[in-house]
Amino acid sequence: MSSVREPVVLTAEPRGEGLDVAVAAARRVVEALLLAGDGTALDMSDVAARLEAVAERLERHAPTLQQRMVDMWAGDGVTRHDPVVGSENALAPPLRFLGRDDGSVESRTTLGLPYQGPPGVIHGGISALLLDHALDFANQWAGVSGMTGTLTVRYHRPAPLFVELVITARQETVEGRKIRTTGELHADGELCVTAEAIFIDKHLPRPR
Amino acid sequence: MSSVREPVVLTAEPRGEGLDVAVAAARRVVEALLLAGDGTALDMSDVAARLEAVAERLERHAPTLQQRMVDMWAGDGVTRHDPVVGSENALAPPLRFLGRDDGSVESRTTLGLPYQGPPGVIHGGISALLLDHALDFANQWAGVSGMTGTLTVRYHRPAPLFVELVITARQETVEGRKIRTTGELHADGELCVTAEAIFIDKHLPRPR
Repeated sequence: MSSVREPVVLTAEPRGEGLDVAVAAARRVVEALLLAGDGTALDMSDVAARLEAVAERLERHAPTLQQRMVDMWAGDGVTRHDPVVGSENALAPPLRFLGRDDGSVESRTTLGLPYQGPPGVIHGGISALLLDHALDFANQWAGVSGMTGTLTVRYHRPAPLFVELVITARQETVEGRKIRTTGELHADGELCVTAEAIFIDKHLPRPR
Repeated sequence: MSSVREPVVLTAEPRGEGLDVAVAAARRVVEALLLAGDGTALDMSDVAARLEAVAERLERHAPTLQQRMVDMWAGDGVTRHDPVVGSENALAPPLRFLGRDDGSVESRTTLGLPYQGPPGVIHGGISALLLDHALDFANQWAGVSGMTGTLTVRYHRPAPLFVELVITARQETVEGRKIRTTGELHADGELCVTAEAIFIDKHLPRPR
C-alpha cells in the first residue's frame, strides 16, 4: 500500500533576515510607487534621494560583478536570484514551488499592480514568464531538465490581478534530448492560460 | 518621390522629474541588492528599515486603488505603468519603442542581473515578455491591435546580459479579427529569439 507523501518544497525558503528582508522591502517600494502615482503631495525628489542613497551604499559594499556571479551560482543560491522565484530579486513575486507525488509541480501567488498588462489583468508576457519557469521546475522535479527550445502559450481568458493564481506544470515525455512539458494557470477555478514547451537537455556552465 | 521619415517614438518619454526619477532610483536599488548579495558587511536590517520607511510614506499618500486605476488608465498614463515600457514601473527595463516608416517597431536595451535566467543570460520568460509587448506595439503602430491569443517563442541561442539587444516586430496579416504578428530579438548581430503570435481584435474596457 502506498501513501501520499507530503509535497516537497522545490524553491529555497526565504530567510526572515538579511538580504531577503531588504528585498521584500524593495518589492513593497516598487508596488507603493505604482500605487502612489504622480498626483500626490509627496516630494518625489526626496523619495528619489532616499532611494539613491540606499543604492549607493549597497553598490559601495558590493563585490565585483564577476565575484558575485560566482557566489550567486554556488550552492543554495541558484533559486534565490532569478526573476520568478528569487527571494533576492525584487522583480520576482516570488513564487514558491511544490513538487507532488504525481509528478506535477504547483505554485500559488497573487499579483498586484507591477504585473498589470491590460486594465486589471496580468500582462500576457508575465503569464508566459511564470509558466516558462513552472515548466522548468516540472523538468527538474522529474529529473531531466534543459533549456527552452520552443514555448507556446495560449490565452483562454484574462488572468486577474489581486486574485490567487494556481500555476501547475508537469513533464509529459522525454525522447532523446527533447523534453516536452505542459503547464496551466488558473484563477478562481477557471483556466486562464496554458503553456507547452519543448526543452533541449543541455545546460550552460556555472561561472567559477 | 518619397523620403524616409524620422521614426516616431511610441512610448511616453520618461520625465526628468517627479515619479519617474523616484522609480529610476528604485530600479537602481533592485539591481544593487542583487549585486551586493548576502555576503557584505552591510547591516541589511537597516537597509530594509530605510526602504520600509519610504514605502510607508508612499502608501500613506497614495490614492485608493480604485482611484489610481482610473488615473493610470487615463490619457498619457497608458504606457507609463506596465512591466515592459513603464517608466513608473521599476520592473520594466524600461523599453522605448520607435515606429518606422516600413511598418516595423524597434527597441534597444541592455539588461542586467534582475533579468537573469541561466548563468549570464536573459531568462527565457523575460525574452517572451519583451517580445509579447513588442508584438503589441507593432499592432498599435499598424493601427489594428488586440489581446494575445497564442504566443509562440523560439529560442535560437542564449541572449546575453550586459550586451545591447535589438528587439523588432511587425504586423504580418489581419484576417477578420485575427492578427498575425512576428518579432525578433538580436544581440551582437546574432538572432537569439523569435516570436510569432495571433492576436484577437478585442480590448478590455478602461476603469472609470
